[in-house]
Amino acid sequence: MRLVVVGGVAGGMSAAARARRLSEDADIIVLERGGEVSFANCGLPYFVGGEIQDEAQLLVQTPAGLRASLGIDVRVNTDVVALDPSARTLTISDENGRSQLTYDHLILSPGASAIRPPLAGLDSPRVHTLRTVPDAVALKAATRGAATAVVLGAGFIGLEAAEALQARGIRTSVVELAPHVLPPLEAEMAQLVRDELLRLGIDVRDGVSATSVEKGAQNDVVILSDGTRISADIIVLSVGVRPDTLLWEQAGVSCERGAILTDEMGHTSVEGIWAVGDATASADLVTGARRPVALAGPANRAGRLVADAIMGRRGHALPSLAGTAIVRVGELTVALTGANRRALDDAGLEYHTVHLHPLNHAGYFPGASQIHLLLHFGSDGRVLGAQAIGNDGVDKRIDVLSVAIKAGFTVRDLVDLDLAYSPPYGSAKDPVNMAGMMACNVLDGTLTLWHASDIDDVLATALVLDVRSAAEVAEGSLPGVLNIPHTELRDRMGEVREAADGRPVRVLCASGVRSYLAQRQLVHAGFDAANLSGGMLTLIAGLGARASQLITTN
Amino acid sequence: MRLVVVGGVAGGMSAAARARRLSEDADIIVLERGGEVSFANCGLPYFVGGEIQDEAQLLVQTPAGLRASLGIDVRVNTDVVALDPSARTLTISDENGRSQLTYDHLILSPGASAIRPPLAGLDSPRVHTLRTVPDAVALKAATRGAATAVVLGAGFIGLEAAEALQARGIRTSVVELAPHVLPPLEAEMAQLVRDELLRLGIDVRDGVSATSVEKGAQNDVVILSDGTRISADIIVLSVGVRPDTLLWEQAGVSCERGAILTDEMGHTSVEGIWAVGDATASADLVTGARRPVALAGPANRAGRLVADAIMGRRGHALPSLAGTAIVRVGELTVALTGANRRALDDAGLEYHTVHLHPLNHAGYFPGASQIHLLLHFGSDGRVLGAQAIGNDGVDKRIDVLSVAIKAGFTVRDLVDLDLAYSPPYGSAKDPVNMAGMMACNVLDGTLTLWHASDIDDVLATALVLDVRSAAEVAEGSLPGVLNIPHTELRDRMGEVREAADGRPVRVLCASGVRSYLAQRQLVHAGFDAANLSGGMLTLIAGLGARASQLITTN
Repeated sequence: MRLVVVGGVAGGMSAAARARRLSEDADIIVLERGGEVSFANCGLPYFVGGEIQDEAQLLVQTPAGLRASLGIDVRVNTDVVALDPSARTLTISDENGRSQLTYDHLILSPGASAIRPPLAGLDSPRVHTLRTVPDAVALKAATRGAATAVVLGAGFIGLEAAEALQARGIRTSVVELAPHVLPPLEAEMAQLVRDELLRLGIDVRDGVSATSVEKGAQNDVVILSDGTRISADIIVLSVGVRPDTLLWEQAGVSCERGAILTDEMGHTSVEGIWAVGDATASADLVTGARRPVALAGPANRAGRLVADAIMGRRGHALPSLAGTAIVRVGELTVALTGANRRALDDAGLEYHTVHLHPLNHAGYFPGASQIHLLLHFGSDGRVLGAQAIGNDGVDKRIDVLSVAIKAGFTVRDLVDLDLAYSPPYGSAKDPVNMAGMMACNVLDGTLTLWHASDIDDVLATALVLDVRSAAEVAEGSLPGVLNIPHTELRDRMGEVREAADGRPVRVLCASGVRSYLAQRQLVHAGFDAANLSGGMLTLIAGLGARASQLITTN
Repeated sequence: MRLVVVGGVAGGMSAAARARRLSEDADIIVLERGGEVSFANCGLPYFVGGEIQDEAQLLVQTPAGLRASLGIDVRVNTDVVALDPSARTLTISDENGRSQLTYDHLILSPGASAIRPPLAGLDSPRVHTLRTVPDAVALKAATRGAATAVVLGAGFIGLEAAEALQARGIRTSVVELAPHVLPPLEAEMAQLVRDELLRLGIDVRDGVSATSVEKGAQNDVVILSDGTRISADIIVLSVGVRPDTLLWEQAGVSCERGAILTDEMGHTSVEGIWAVGDATASADLVTGARRPVALAGPANRAGRLVADAIMGRRGHALPSLAGTAIVRVGELTVALTGANRRALDDAGLEYHTVHLHPLNHAGYFPGASQIHLLLHFGSDGRVLGAQAIGNDGVDKRIDVLSVAIKAGFTVRDLVDLDLAYSPPYGSAKDPVNMAGMMACNVLDGTLTLWHASDIDDVLATALVLDVRSAAEVAEGSLPGVLNIPHTELRDRMGEVREAADGRPVRVLCASGVRSYLAQRQLVHAGFDAANLSGGMLTLIAGLGARASQLITTN
């Protein structure tokens, strides 16, 4: 039996290796268009930035090593130029010219290509992408002597590239068409990432597009839609990827918006042809929507499952994906899992959101730092999505929440999670437990929230009660607030009644904890009271540029 | 309505605070025997060791602060001396003498006391326990001028105390009656902890008991059952805790082996009396066994749920517990969740075990370190328990596995977990995914394992094939092995056949990865082949003291 795998990275190589472990007899051939297989594509920005110093470290496997340990015939610099599914034959092109290769099973793992928008000047030699080891080597070489760089696209890889360039002493700008960096994040989370980019010295241009590149002798100039001109010795194009599937679609493999469609075992519409990885459409665990997910983990695991299916192992369907993703930005870790507002709105799902800022571990243990955590959940309590940002412990909470989403857990289940606690690692009530408690409070009516998006309505119609200390309020608060520290509220309820004069009371504090205690007292005293989700921390981030107009110091 | 809470730490204080948030009307009184409430009991060893420098940091809440923010009447140094359930009346004793206190609802959160074994000399003033802030202050004071210490009991707190004392320059011994330190761990995991304790300079005496303490003028001497005499300026008693329930049991509250029994809402056998925390029996999530679980997290969360029940919130039963626990030992993190071998054997459950040593994050990213991971799972694939040890990323994997256990996941589900991956945080195949893959291989027969416990049988009846490099083998291997590096096995299968001479082949390498590839080839070639679970790393740890006899260098 001959198994041919097209694409020797992530999903493709996982499939080939697993197939060999299940069968010593199979003839396994991997065809890779590039010069390397199983390279560390997620490590490329760190090589550019210098954290990974040796190019050899990026080559996790070599063709020779794979032949020795697994008996796999790995052919690099080999392109597939035609597929004849009825004859189960590929036409391949390599240094020896064209030839035919037959297969019994074919696994397509072609990955995705960088999207190249139709911008004038994008053919400049100063324009780089960052998808392969040669890309990374070329970009790193270009950093020598470079003073300025523009990264087009502030997604995960764009930000990693920007940080790498900035770390090499290059004045770097990132340009993002979407209203904020890391578009999958909610705005109030992305603002924290923006702040960190600025702290690193990176120039952030969001909500604006590049319209052209002016090629010059000394450097290029990137022209933005708002007229800004940014000089650039280096331009990195990182505006997204597109499944690399034209050839397969033309040969009759069913695709949807360019992504290969498979059944739940990874088999395409054509007998004997399977597909995995960035080029395929995956089902979303929360919304059920089908879309390509360009993540290494799901690709690797799908490769293994498809090999199982080909080798006749009892079925294990390809899972729906929570789309869990993570990126390091400066000293922050930024991670998300499940659906965001946009996906929930697109799917027509109703949901609530809570924001909290718990410490990563016991506050009395040295080195505690805040985690900014956001949780979306349905009216039935089902956990739908989560996002977190902080210095430490972010990856753990998002992983825990991704498992909770996969389990179909509700926020009540989050309260009961039995997470490892000792002062260096967490708190007796872990941030995930806390998020569950807050969400339960919302569902049973104990906690009523207001959000940054309600700001105009609140300022127009409600009394804003700020229950922080006078010193905190002096450093900045909303206009016209009544300030009563939460510990004095029981004795000063009359002042609230007078100031409210029949209006609702909207409470706030720094992070939403003290104001929750106040809100409970206000509700008991008969007020229509709601608590600002996530407190001033989340409000300021959620208001973005408006914050500096609205928040005034005394 | 009056709510009286007995015990102002963890579960008790959580219940009181939650009750106030749900009701401004309730009269809430907390009675605490000690001088502090809501103190950081998990932080006490770090105060002794000096990482937490200020005693005030241990006091998370104060009676005055709780009165101001929550209107709770907190009475410290107040003991309960009698309970009359029919009259719903407590007799309390404080500095003003005895008095009566009625209640509508009573929450018992008395905690547990240090077990004091009947050893001669244990009344020495050099003997300390470490349960309260005054205990910690006294122990820290005793470290000044002390040169030697003995910690009796190598459980979680015992090891934290030993490390704290050693960090203060005191020559410290730990004595543990069980065969190994941290008795809930499996032996092959505990050995790694033992090695770390020795690296810290701590003298480890396991599998031996203290028989008496000889009190002396200069110092005491601890006498062990093997006759050893250890001088000690300080003795820390940490051999376990016992629920503090005699008074309640005598008043008619049903207990089992000293632990208060409750229904699923936390209500005891007596109307109006509820109980939470270390003094109660909890159901084990995996085995269903009922036992007291002395962990802060479950106690805190139970307090909240009981307050909900008392205040008439819609029910949310107290959860069964995975018993997730974690401890830092030197540079290691040690954590476990779910059932261990003993609990599984006691429950009569059949299970398999896999060992693996994956890196905490991508190997090509700087700073990767190994996680030693063990997974128990049932023949039906259900995840039953896990233990992990390493420098970094251990807490995350154990938390993920604790959620998986709560979800009732099988090892197939572990394969599909969508965990956050980027080079600084994990791998495309996370250690938890890898554990699931190995376990699936065991269940479907792709992977057959042998363990350290099979060593005598293997040496007597099988050919041991060591597929590491010759250089690795020279540094130590089992007697009589055939060494063929895994990359040469396909070409040298005849040598194996000759050496095996009809015997089974038991393969090994350093960690079990290369030997798995070899095992697959051997099975295909017709051998009865099995792979050493966790490789030499786990074998050496599992053999313990026998390792130095069996493993020889060439």
